[in-house]
Amino acid sequence: MSSVNKVVLAYSGGLDTSVIVRWLQETYGCEVVTFTADIGQGEEVEPARAKAEALGVKEIYIDDLREEFARDYVFPMFRANAIYEGEYLLGTSIARPLIAKRLIEIANETGADAISHGATGKGNDQVRFELGAYALKPGVKVIAPWREWDLTSRETLMAYCEKHNIPVDFNKKKKSPYSMDANLLHISYEGGVLEEPWAEAEEDMWRWSVSPENAPDAPEYIEVSFEKGDIVAINGEAMSPATVMETLNTLGGKHGIGRLDIVENRYVGMKSRGCYETPAGTIMIKAHRAIESITLDREVAHLKDSLMPKYAELVYNGYWWSPERIMLQKAIDESQTNVNGDVRLKLYKGSVSAVGRRSEQSLFDEKIATFEDDAGAYDQKDAEGFIKLNALRMRIAAQKGRKLF
Amino acid sequence: MSSVNKVVLAYSGGLDTSVIVRWLQETYGCEVVTFTADIGQGEEVEPARAKAEALGVKEIYIDDLREEFARDYVFPMFRANAIYEGEYLLGTSIARPLIAKRLIEIANETGADAISHGATGKGNDQVRFELGAYALKPGVKVIAPWREWDLTSRETLMAYCEKHNIPVDFNKKKKSPYSMDANLLHISYEGGVLEEPWAEAEEDMWRWSVSPENAPDAPEYIEVSFEKGDIVAINGEAMSPATVMETLNTLGGKHGIGRLDIVENRYVGMKSRGCYETPAGTIMIKAHRAIESITLDREVAHLKDSLMPKYAELVYNGYWWSPERIMLQKAIDESQTNVNGDVRLKLYKGSVSAVGRRSEQSLFDEKIATFEDDAGAYDQKDAEGFIKLNALRMRIAAQKGRKLF
Amino acid sequence: MSSVNKVVLAYSGGLDTSVIVRWLQETYGCEVVTFTADIGQGEEVEPARAKAEALGVKEIYIDDLREEFARDYVFPMFRANAIYEGEYLLGTSIARPLIAKRLIEIANETGADAISHGATGKGNDQVRFELGAYALKPGVKVIAPWREWDLTSRETLMAYCEKHNIPVDFNKKKKSPYSMDANLLHISYEGGVLEEPWAEAEEDMWRWSVSPENAPDAPEYIEVSFEKGDIVAINGEAMSPATVMETLNTLGGKHGIGRLDIVENRYVGMKSRGCYETPAGTIMIKAHRAIESITLDREVAHLKDSLMPKYAELVYNGYWWSPERIMLQKAIDESQTNVNGDVRLKLYKGSVSAVGRRSEQSLFDEKIATFEDDAGAYDQKDAEGFIKLNALRMRIAAQKGRKLF
Amino acid sequence: MSSVNKVVLAYSGGLDTSVIVRWLQETYGCEVVTFTADIGQGEEVEPARAKAEALGVKEIYIDDLREEFARDYVFPMFRANAIYEGEYLLGTSIARPLIAKRLIEIANETGADAISHGATGKGNDQVRFELGAYALKPGVKVIAPWREWDLTSRETLMAYCEKHNIPVDFNKKKKSPYSMDANLLHISYEGGVLEEPWAEAEEDMWRWSVSPENAPDAPEYIEVSFEKGDIVAINGEAMSPATVMETLNTLGGKHGIGRLDIVENRYVGMKSRGCYETPAGTIMIKAHRAIESITLDREVAHLKDSLMPKYAELVYNGYWWSPERIMLQKAIDESQTNVNGDVRLKLYKGSVSAVGRRSEQSLFDEKIATFEDDAGAYDQKDAEGFIKLNALRMRIAAQKGRKLF
Repeated sequence: MSSVNKVVLAYSGGLDTSVIVRWLQETYGCEVVTFTADIGQGEEVEPARAKAEALGVKEIYIDDLREEFARDYVFPMFRANAIYEGEYLLGTSIARPLIAKRLIEIANETGADAISHGATGKGNDQVRFELGAYALKPGVKVIAPWREWDLTSRETLMAYCEKHNIPVDFNKKKKSPYSMDANLLHISYEGGVLEEPWAEAEEDMWRWSVSPENAPDAPEYIEVSFEKGDIVAINGEAMSPATVMETLNTLGGKHGIGRLDIVENRYVGMKSRGCYETPAGTIMIKAHRAIESITLDREVAHLKDSLMPKYAELVYNGYWWSPERIMLQKAIDESQTNVNGDVRLKLYKGSVSAVGRRSEQSLFDEKIATFEDDAGAYDQKDAEGFIKLNALRMRIAAQKGRKLF
Repeated sequence: MSSVNKVVLAYSGGLDTSVIVRWLQETYGCEVVTFTADIGQGEEVEPARAKAEALGVKEIYIDDLREEFARDYVFPMFRANAIYEGEYLLGTSIARPLIAKRLIEIANETGADAISHGATGKGNDQVRFELGAYALKPGVKVIAPWREWDLTSRETLMAYCEKHNIPVDFNKKKKSPYSMDANLLHISYEGGVLEEPWAEAEEDMWRWSVSPENAPDAPEYIEVSFEKGDIVAINGEAMSPATVMETLNTLGGKHGIGRLDIVENRYVGMKSRGCYETPAGTIMIKAHRAIESITLDREVAHLKDSLMPKYAELVYNGYWWSPERIMLQKAIDESQTNVNGDVRLKLYKGSVSAVGRRSEQSLFDEKIATFEDDAGAYDQKDAEGFIKLNALRMRIAAQKGRKLF
Repeated sequence: MSSVNKVVLAYSGGLDTSVIVRWLQETYGCEVVTFTADIGQGEEVEPARAKAEALGVKEIYIDDLREEFARDYVFPMFRANAIYEGEYLLGTSIARPLIAKRLIEIANETGADAISHGATGKGNDQVRFELGAYALKPGVKVIAPWREWDLTSRETLMAYCEKHNIPVDFNKKKKSPYSMDANLLHISYEGGVLEEPWAEAEEDMWRWSVSPENAPDAPEYIEVSFEKGDIVAINGEAMSPATVMETLNTLGGKHGIGRLDIVENRYVGMKSRGCYETPAGTIMIKAHRAIESITLDREVAHLKDSLMPKYAELVYNGYWWSPERIMLQKAIDESQTNVNGDVRLKLYKGSVSAVGRRSEQSLFDEKIATFEDDAGAYDQKDAEGFIKLNALRMRIAAQKGRKLF
Repeated sequence: MSSVNKVVLAYSGGLDTSVIVRWLQETYGCEVVTFTADIGQGEEVEPARAKAEALGVKEIYIDDLREEFARDYVFPMFRANAIYEGEYLLGTSIARPLIAKRLIEIANETGADAISHGATGKGNDQVRFELGAYALKPGVKVIAPWREWDLTSRETLMAYCEKHNIPVDFNKKKKSPYSMDANLLHISYEGGVLEEPWAEAEEDMWRWSVSPENAPDAPEYIEVSFEKGDIVAINGEAMSPATVMETLNTLGGKHGIGRLDIVENRYVGMKSRGCYETPAGTIMIKAHRAIESITLDREVAHLKDSLMPKYAELVYNGYWWSPERIMLQKAIDESQTNVNGDVRLKLYKGSVSAVGRRSEQSLFDEKIATFEDDAGAYDQKDAEGFIKLNALRMRIAAQKGRKLF
């Protein structure tokens, strides 16, 4: 075991990471710096201070990163319309690189030579934390207690707490049978009955949204405004990125929007069943597609669509802090220059529909698109040459005897 | 104008194509063969016979192509999870290659040297018909009256009818202000007030589905069963492809599922606003994604996702009958070998959710995925090496001074 | 025929475009502005002035665009390692957008409402000129005489010259049986005996390079230096982009480097046989790959390789002036930030080999790469976990009975 | 250390793998089965028998796999025109999956529960062997001595030999300072002075080819014939796949063809410098591109080019035995149905050029491609509509004020 002087720990204030504080102190004989961030998970972060102090931590970082998270991580990702495996809006994935970056910044500030986190050895989050950490501070030591220690059952963990005087009333929220993760973009559920993919998730699992059945019986219409691909106002009111997300989470949650139940492929190689509530994100991607539909050039839109699976995979797999993600982002951001305008949306019992879109940069041309007389804006005879030359290669092939079935 | 002896016309029995029959006879002095197909548009096709006879047509083809359409066109496309521009399920696009193929088969049977259709010079359908026709019969002459004639207003068309004794009561359905197209997969609406992208579609436009607001207040659960990526049974009852689609259209329509309102990019270069009802298709793609989620290898799934935009573009643009679509289909069909099993779905007020999935070919491994003790099925320590080698290139770069922000 | 007041013609000073001057004057009764550019084709452009004057042209533009061509067109394209269909370095394709841009700039300066060019209706160049022109000046009228007139044989053309007093001694270079095009990047040959793909090109066709057989018997070593992906010095001597290309053309031509004989697929739908001499380009792409090999991150390099075919297709098809090419260029240029350093090359009898490469931004790490003891820079045990997790999905599949053959 | 009963070792008969035999016997107390294959490396394999016997091995497999290697691995890969990072023809990569498959087959036949190989922990080969092994026999134990033992210097290895009576005259060929690997497709060199990427490889390193300087002063022309994308005859003489490769290796080697000197990116994360001789492969890919140029549809060719980097990456990274490689192969093989015909090649002092190509399935149409009068085979006026509709989206954008620079 290599020597460690000081380690920065991503600290939630919960039982598991409190155990980790003590375990790091014991095992590595090193100083622990805790870092707790508000990224919109909906729980107070300030209580983590007292808990860390009680564990003898001297350097305690508690940051409100909600605006940075929304502005520099969530919004750039939504410019790409990123969806993993056709369904997942990457709610957990996108928060990890921000945490990784702050861990490294704090390590640099405090002179720490290591970082640590509470992610398990089976999941994606360890990869996301650690790839980010290594990419930003290549000599950093990473300590992943769940891969090292033997506290792998609830019993051994409790025994450890008792032995080291760690108060177990930390553990209230853990009465949930699910492993959960939350931030401004989503709350996720794994484990418990979800480990049987045929079993339906129980209604009382969901925390952020009412069920569609319990949503209002009347639809609600909202209008969102975009600048360069980002939402900057809701119903005409300008808002910061984090406020946009909080507002849409409230609206979406009220109407039962954004629930998802999938089996996904983890980067570490196994399939896993996850349920997600992503109210704001579900509305955002629908709205973004709609504003792009009138402001993006067709080939730019198609190029974006062809790049998207790669981009989403990079984010999912933990390569936010990679030169290839940044290279793709340059192209995506370039595409958003004219993605300005308004989208009108209908929210109703679990669904969000785009019902109107307008933009001063719209490329929709009524004079050309119309089924009515277009006064010569488009010469229908051009279509003949267009088709004939596009068909030429296939006509030649057919003339030479090639068969298509 | 090159000489034409006999032309096969895609004949709906409606006013426009009836005018075309006469116009072809008049303009080209040629014999007209009519071809009318039931592809699930929901209208009787047999009445087209009398109308064609009244126009002096001697060779009249009326085919029920519903099963062929579902089995050989819709189902293969859904194996690819094809979606155009993130939203459109390609309902019109996928019907055209079948019509093109039958037009050419009939031309070959009847010794016709030309085909004709009623699609306008501004749309995608002319391209789809004609690319297919040229690819299958390279020397065929294509007559597209809407690109040639001067009957471009309702008045000139009516005058033509009067002059040539074409009964205009054909025209009942045309009281709709929308240009519509329907088949087993969808009904589409364009034109009218939709030409203003900011205007919401009127409720009475929609024909196949109730509004979510008017859908039942209780959700309905169904179970669909897959073999090699195709749905073969609903609620345990084996069904033919067309019956699967009819059944799901009924179920989806009842629950307000499958409405879509978008602005899309036509192949001929302009943007156009379209509304679509695709009840069965919306359910099918959700279910297919769900069964794939447990039966497809991760990298196969990701490769499919990366190929999908290209595949969807090919179908949209009219290249069904092309060697590149067939080449992609080979890969896609190969991927479906093990896509067998059942998906449980919840239908409720406009939404379809997957709530369970199971398969004898499932790759979901509870022993490995579990958050509980896995009895050594997975060695968490492997993750360290996995991460370290994946990070190596970025660590080297960072050590050599590369910055990521 | 719509009315035209003034037309800007891409004028080479040769017979064909001289005929076009007169034909435009006669046919459209319009004023003709000529534009002649030196893009490195190796012929004097100044003589075009007197010829244009003799044809009554009042506004004559003669530009030396060599540096702009090399700097803003050729070099950005080589950053992408663009190769069309595995072999073609896009020598003709990349010159057209520059000509199109200048035609439009001159049209704007002179108040012309049309442009014209001498490209045939069968080739790619018409597409490249016209897509560029329309993209930059959407209302411009394009006149493509070869698609309009009836001077389609040498005889009718000569008769036209005689009738209109156009001196046919213009025609000297046309004694070649080949259709040729030249600029700083290449000279191309089409037509004549090349129309038989089985026939070998005759040795006396080639103009820029000696045959490998006649090249020096001793190899020559050169060193090229890169900054941000562009060559900025040869053998330690700093040079402008055009001088880089001229120097490498001389060196490559001397050693018989850069000949290519292929059948390619034109955008307009047919296959065509072309021979090319691209001495500088052949050296440049080899050198660029070599400097990238030590300065690019692996995943950036692979992403570039996956985007390259699309980029090359865009350039070949005439979409330089398109938002999608520009979007890709942003990503490519981003990737070149650290592509600095030197490459040592061996030139010998038709071949160019990279024999050395070095860079202050090199990511090659001898300590890690060595087969000798690396003093712990790399822990070989990490490989086990790396392999095991990468294999996990396939192991699970095999355990569940999936077969791979 | 888990218990092992019997292990199948990929045994070359050289010193390193002989040490491994003994080390496996000592360390695991297990029986060792040796497997030695002739895959065209140019050394006798039969002597491995006596060496293995001397080490106490009872089950000895010695296979001639040359035809299987050429037919089922090299040829399918060349159908894809696979090149890694723009230059590398994957000579080592493609041999590993065959070895992996045989190791597993022999393990199944002999009841072995483990396999072993002599690849280091820093390279790609360990990954290729082990991914293949796990994919084909998920429960297999893999022993990679270089990752486990402490014989990491020449001295410790020699000491081990002395102690265990392993004759070190095995070691003759190891006088080379290079790490080499050879098979029908190539011979590779790594290590030694090559670890400095600026240093030129020494002439006496190369073993299979003369230097271009020493190649014959006269070019040699050959003709190769393809069926379904594979070479089946040379100069009219039908040959088996392995004989094709041996013949082309001789021809290419004689003319100095196929030397390559690159820095490549290993899957395990570092860059490495390698030199390769691939005489047959260099000729094969040139010839294959040429026959495809007249027999492949344009869009099929472009689709192949867009898939190629992914395919090459899969082979390089060791995923031959993966469902995604097989899925891609289906598409690639489909594309080769009509890739039949002859290519005429010129071999001269390090270069191979295609100078002629012909096929009964040729899609080259002289009547359409000609610059001479084509008697109406192609209507040049079609080009106008083709260009106008392709330009439409960009014209609309420009009319609405979008700028491209």
